[in-house]
Amino acid sequence: MFKFKFTFTFKGKRDMNTNSWIKTVSLALPSLQDNTADADRLITALKQELGADAVKMDLLLLKQVPDLLRKWDYHVRCVLFKEQNQWILTGMTAARDPRPLAGLAVDLGTSRVVIRLLDLSTGGILAESTFDNPQIVIGPDVLARIHHSETEGGLERNTRLIIEGLNCEISKLCQTCKLEPDDVHLISVAGNTAMTHLFMGLNPRWIIREPYIPVVNHPGVLKAEELGVRVNPLARVMIFPNVGSYFGGDLIAGILFSGMNTAEETAILLDVGTNAEVVLGNRHWLIACAGAAGPALEGGVSKMGMMAGPGVIEKIVGIDPDTRQFDLRTIGQTRPIGICGSGMIDLAAHLFLSGMMDIRGKLVPKACGERLGEKAGIRHLVVVPARDSGTSEDLIISQADLDSLIRSKAAMFTILETITLSVGMSLNEISTFYVAGTFGCFINPTSAISIGMIPDLPLDCYRPLGNSSLGGATMVLTSPESLAEIDAIRDRITYLELNVNQDFMNRFSAAKFLPHTNQSLFPSVHRL
Amino acid sequence: MFKFKFTFTFKGKRDMNTNSWIKTVSLALPSLQDNTADADRLITALKQELGADAVKMDLLLLKQVPDLLRKWDYHVRCVLFKEQNQWILTGMTAARDPRPLAGLAVDLGTSRVVIRLLDLSTGGILAESTFDNPQIVIGPDVLARIHHSETEGGLERNTRLIIEGLNCEISKLCQTCKLEPDDVHLISVAGNTAMTHLFMGLNPRWIIREPYIPVVNHPGVLKAEELGVRVNPLARVMIFPNVGSYFGGDLIAGILFSGMNTAEETAILLDVGTNAEVVLGNRHWLIACAGAAGPALEGGVSKMGMMAGPGVIEKIVGIDPDTRQFDLRTIGQTRPIGICGSGMIDLAAHLFLSGMMDIRGKLVPKACGERLGEKAGIRHLVVVPARDSGTSEDLIISQADLDSLIRSKAAMFTILETITLSVGMSLNEISTFYVAGTFGCFINPTSAISIGMIPDLPLDCYRPLGNSSLGGATMVLTSPESLAEIDAIRDRITYLELNVNQDFMNRFSAAKFLPHTNQSLFPSVHRL
Repeated sequence: MFKFKFTFTFKGKRDMNTNSWIKTVSLALPSLQDNTADADRLITALKQELGADAVKMDLLLLKQVPDLLRKWDYHVRCVLFKEQNQWILTGMTAARDPRPLAGLAVDLGTSRVVIRLLDLSTGGILAESTFDNPQIVIGPDVLARIHHSETEGGLERNTRLIIEGLNCEISKLCQTCKLEPDDVHLISVAGNTAMTHLFMGLNPRWIIREPYIPVVNHPGVLKAEELGVRVNPLARVMIFPNVGSYFGGDLIAGILFSGMNTAEETAILLDVGTNAEVVLGNRHWLIACAGAAGPALEGGVSKMGMMAGPGVIEKIVGIDPDTRQFDLRTIGQTRPIGICGSGMIDLAAHLFLSGMMDIRGKLVPKACGERLGEKAGIRHLVVVPARDSGTSEDLIISQADLDSLIRSKAAMFTILETITLSVGMSLNEISTFYVAGTFGCFINPTSAISIGMIPDLPLDCYRPLGNSSLGGATMVLTSPESLAEIDAIRDRITYLELNVNQDFMNRFSAAKFLPHTNQSLFPSVHRL
Repeated sequence: MFKFKFTFTFKGKRDMNTNSWIKTVSLALPSLQDNTADADRLITALKQELGADAVKMDLLLLKQVPDLLRKWDYHVRCVLFKEQNQWILTGMTAARDPRPLAGLAVDLGTSRVVIRLLDLSTGGILAESTFDNPQIVIGPDVLARIHHSETEGGLERNTRLIIEGLNCEISKLCQTCKLEPDDVHLISVAGNTAMTHLFMGLNPRWIIREPYIPVVNHPGVLKAEELGVRVNPLARVMIFPNVGSYFGGDLIAGILFSGMNTAEETAILLDVGTNAEVVLGNRHWLIACAGAAGPALEGGVSKMGMMAGPGVIEKIVGIDPDTRQFDLRTIGQTRPIGICGSGMIDLAAHLFLSGMMDIRGKLVPKACGERLGEKAGIRHLVVVPARDSGTSEDLIISQADLDSLIRSKAAMFTILETITLSVGMSLNEISTFYVAGTFGCFINPTSAISIGMIPDLPLDCYRPLGNSSLGGATMVLTSPESLAEIDAIRDRITYLELNVNQDFMNRFSAAKFLPHTNQSLFPSVHRL
């Protein structure tokens, strides 16, 4: 069986001395012949080092510059960052200070926030942690939080929750590496448009109302201090731009991380959450769209569906043709208590390939045998009988669950087909198919192809990206080149509004079969 | 008699619609077809209006942008400013808001601070006020304040005094025009290097110690808020750059105001305070130097000398050849109580031209008659007898006072000669001779030429500038072109260290005669 490796590469690492935000400079000592001011002396050296027109620093640092330069013999290590066309000096130590200059990459998810501490000089990861977005107390989804922010003090509460949560986690994460929050000099934040707005304290009111206008597309670079983020007082926070209310900075970070924006060949990036978000493109153009395709894949629909966790079936390797017993793997190898998205796809694939489910996605009584049951007129299949389950009850999948999965997979395939058709391509011309997120790490592409959820490309075209949002946020902290690429990516994206017209519906109907009405699209899929 | 007019022109006024920091823009309304974010919609329009690459705004404004744009129908008047290569949006009103957008120009003097409130749209002056620099309680001069800032809390006290004094005066000045400090969106500050450092809270310690290194040469643009200046929270403060510890932003503002930096012909700018500061140059080059030449001219030396005020002799029109009575003018036309710098120069000129003082600057007993007296072996002249004076005592000028004046005038002439010689020019090649400050407004150039203090140029070469530091600070608030010129001026200045060598001393000795040893340098001067 094809197995994904979790690949993780920093572009910044390739050439970290020249491509880094850290610069060490040695200044000529002041003299009667050269009475340039201390700050200007430093800035002149940095401008030369960077080939920059201008470098600015905060008043707070300016006040300390004369003492620091004298203490460190005019030989200093500097943290720089760039905002639009302006360089900013955001931190300074003695040239040979052994203490790392840290950066923090933030994946600001609606449900979960992941933070990663790294050494800005080497790009090395120092520590990482994941925590629930504290705004969950307001509501689990974006909409609930936006509505809350329209109540008295609601916006402030949303913002305070995420900022305080972050401060608390930064402090803990620093402790694990024996660092102080003060050692953090740069932060990058990738999140969807609404989460990013709440993070900055921007009113998200118009995001959800026609014509869906965010407060800002390019938040740019802010001071950690003005956001209330407790790290070094000079630290800057770079917030990924968005394309609109429904295409956020997390996806732009994902594109950056995939590298599809620099390739000559056309690739697809698929990010599955509540929505399926799809980007198609190459170094010349990028086209994006999003559509509801996810619930069945996230464990939100079927009764036995759940998020990944101990006892959750994440993989189904096969079915015994005689006993119809499933050869399955649970997380933590304990008795099964439910199934997650990747397990569901495996299950559907095996049901279909073994003939227990027909090409319309309906359970076949004869093939299912005694595993088939019925309740309130709806058929269901016992996946794990009570005697083997961790709940002491049968784990069942109903025909309704399967119908829902089929609709989801049909929607996803239709979106993929529509976006490629929109540029006159067909799916089999795609060179690389990046799959972001947890979904990407765990799904078995063979299974997904078997049910016609994703196109029948050679398996090595499929590349799981892991947390691509965090990956993109990390790149920005380790590579000025990556920062420069972000606006280029953002400005190159054309957002394709999915018109659910007759053509779309025809393609959707055709995709509701397993793997597809047009079986020639899936030559590798063979039923037993 | 030649009379100076107080001329005051704004370059910005010439073409105030195109050359102003205020821009009014009308934005296309958001739609499903154009869902650009509110802030980006505004910034795109401003970029187009300005021909700029980037415009940034503070988080504080970003938070208000959606509501303000909707309230004002996407038709707004904006205050912009530029920091290095970056534009900043620092204020916004409805397009047709009748309330003026105000700017504040500050001449940050060691003794006196002058502030001027102006309408940024029209360049018109709204109000102006002068107050003593509150740091006077620490000490009257720069040195005392610098030493104080090396004591515990001394720097903070220096900074607090000037900032609080300024806040208080801004508030009063705004009231006189029925404005609020909140209406002030831009501030420009021109002061000497030490005063500028104390204003920003920068340690001036190294300014007065070899090799005389300021903290910063280009303070650039700061937020009013971070300086503690209470105006609009988005307001920016532009601080004039310095060339070094002894050539401050006030002089750069003066050069800007004179316009000598844009002229093809070579001009001189003279600013007389405790030091005489001289700039020579044109649009291609600028050379500057400073030397002690002032005390006798400021009313600091002679017994009857004083700063301008009621009863002070500011002008002497003539001497009756028979009675030797002076035809003099006092400020406020009251009885005389003392004499100021311009009066002293007139007095010396008339004494010399009437033969009461010889070419060595010595009082001539025969010509002075009964007006001559002697005390402790030092001769003196009764300028105003007790019966006519406002003090009921004789107002006298001693030979020592006159000797001191002669040394000052000789020093000044020598500095002027040295700086022109340094570029291989002679003083009579100067096209325009700008005289800054109070000194420039009140001296009678005919008198100053008569005693050989300034070169014998046609009278229309002499141009009094008034408060050129305030004038330059004003220009920056009314003209983006002027702001762009500042760094160009600063970077073009070569500072000439005055070497008091044998050549200098020879020139100084020759200049100690009236008008000069070489009388051919002063063809217009004829004694009666």
